[in-house]
Amino acid sequence: MSRWEPNARGRLEQAAMELYGERGYEQTTVTEIARRAGLTERTFFRHYADKREVLFGGSVLLQDLLVKTLAEAPASAAPIDAVAGALHAAAAVFDARREQSRQRQKVVSANAELRERELVKLASLAAALGEALRARGVPEPSASLAGEAGVAVFKVAFERWIGGADDRAMGAYIQESLDELKSVTAAGEA
Amino acid sequence: MSRWEPNARGRLEQAAMELYGERGYEQTTVTEIARRAGLTERTFFRHYADKREVLFGGSVLLQDLLVKTLAEAPASAAPIDAVAGALHAAAAVFDARREQSRQRQKVVSANAELRERELVKLASLAAALGEALRARGVPEPSASLAGEAGVAVFKVAFERWIGGADDRAMGAYIQESLDELKSVTAAGEA
Repeated sequence: MSRWEPNARGRLEQAAMELYGERGYEQTTVTEIARRAGLTERTFFRHYADKREVLFGGSVLLQDLLVKTLAEAPASAAPIDAVAGALHAAAAVFDARREQSRQRQKVVSANAELRERELVKLASLAAALGEALRARGVPEPSASLAGEAGVAVFKVAFERWIGGADDRAMGAYIQESLDELKSVTAAGEA
Repeated sequence: MSRWEPNARGRLEQAAMELYGERGYEQTTVTEIARRAGLTERTFFRHYADKREVLFGGSVLLQDLLVKTLAEAPASAAPIDAVAGALHAAAAVFDARREQSRQRQKVVSANAELRERELVKLASLAAALGEALRARGVPEPSASLAGEAGVAVFKVAFERWIGGADDRAMGAYIQESLDELKSVTAAGEA
């Protein structure tokens, strides 16, 4: 086996998802994931710290992408528009991975520990968006609320995109959720 | 020791908070909590399933109160106003327990497992509010977004109330957060 393995990370992810789906997350070992991918355990650990990270490596990339895009929004953009722009930038990543996202969601939904981990990642995302907004000069509590609102929009859009029978793109669900949030908050008493 | 213990639940909670604060949550046992409260372990288990439930029993009561208040809002109330009314109804409970809430928050913040449990409770709260709104005839995704928005408002208000140097009541923080969320979402492009 050569030391350089083409697309080892992707092959390990694919093997892990297959095994998690076939026999359950708890019952799957790193040894089995590496074997299914035709790679060594050592190669697995060059890419992932453990079998859970195969599922959550993408959350880190998502957060980095959102924070980076938010930081680069025009200085004149309203906080909610800067957050919306970041969510739209991330939408394309999801559309390119719709099937993988569905497989992953099935695994996460079936396991209490993984569902908790997902909530931790979402809370961390809200905090990171709030922090990025404060760095743009947005005062509190606006920054925290815009960060939380962004995650609320993302969460509802993601659930509808994952569960959707149609082929609408993630960006359409992001826009729909954002419009609904604006409409819901505007509908109340002044 | 008589079988009927006056305010056993409150005494156990107080003893648990003291011990969690003094020696840490992990290092405290149910035996020690019961002893500090001058009660038996058997009495402890009549009130709480385990030492974690001492910290999270209130979350269940909070969710019940919010859902009940929301269900009783006038049929004509906009979803966000029904949610706001429920949050205001809960505010008085917090004001009556400010010191206990601060003690509890210190314990929860210091422990990763407890922080995750708190996030699970908040996610469950958002889902319960969404469900209560759907029961009022609010369609999706408005119901889910109003539920998530309510929890965002509560989360930010609670953090500011707990950390606040002043003596403003929880209701003032709820109103401030709600107004800020409305202002933040209204400020963007149409």
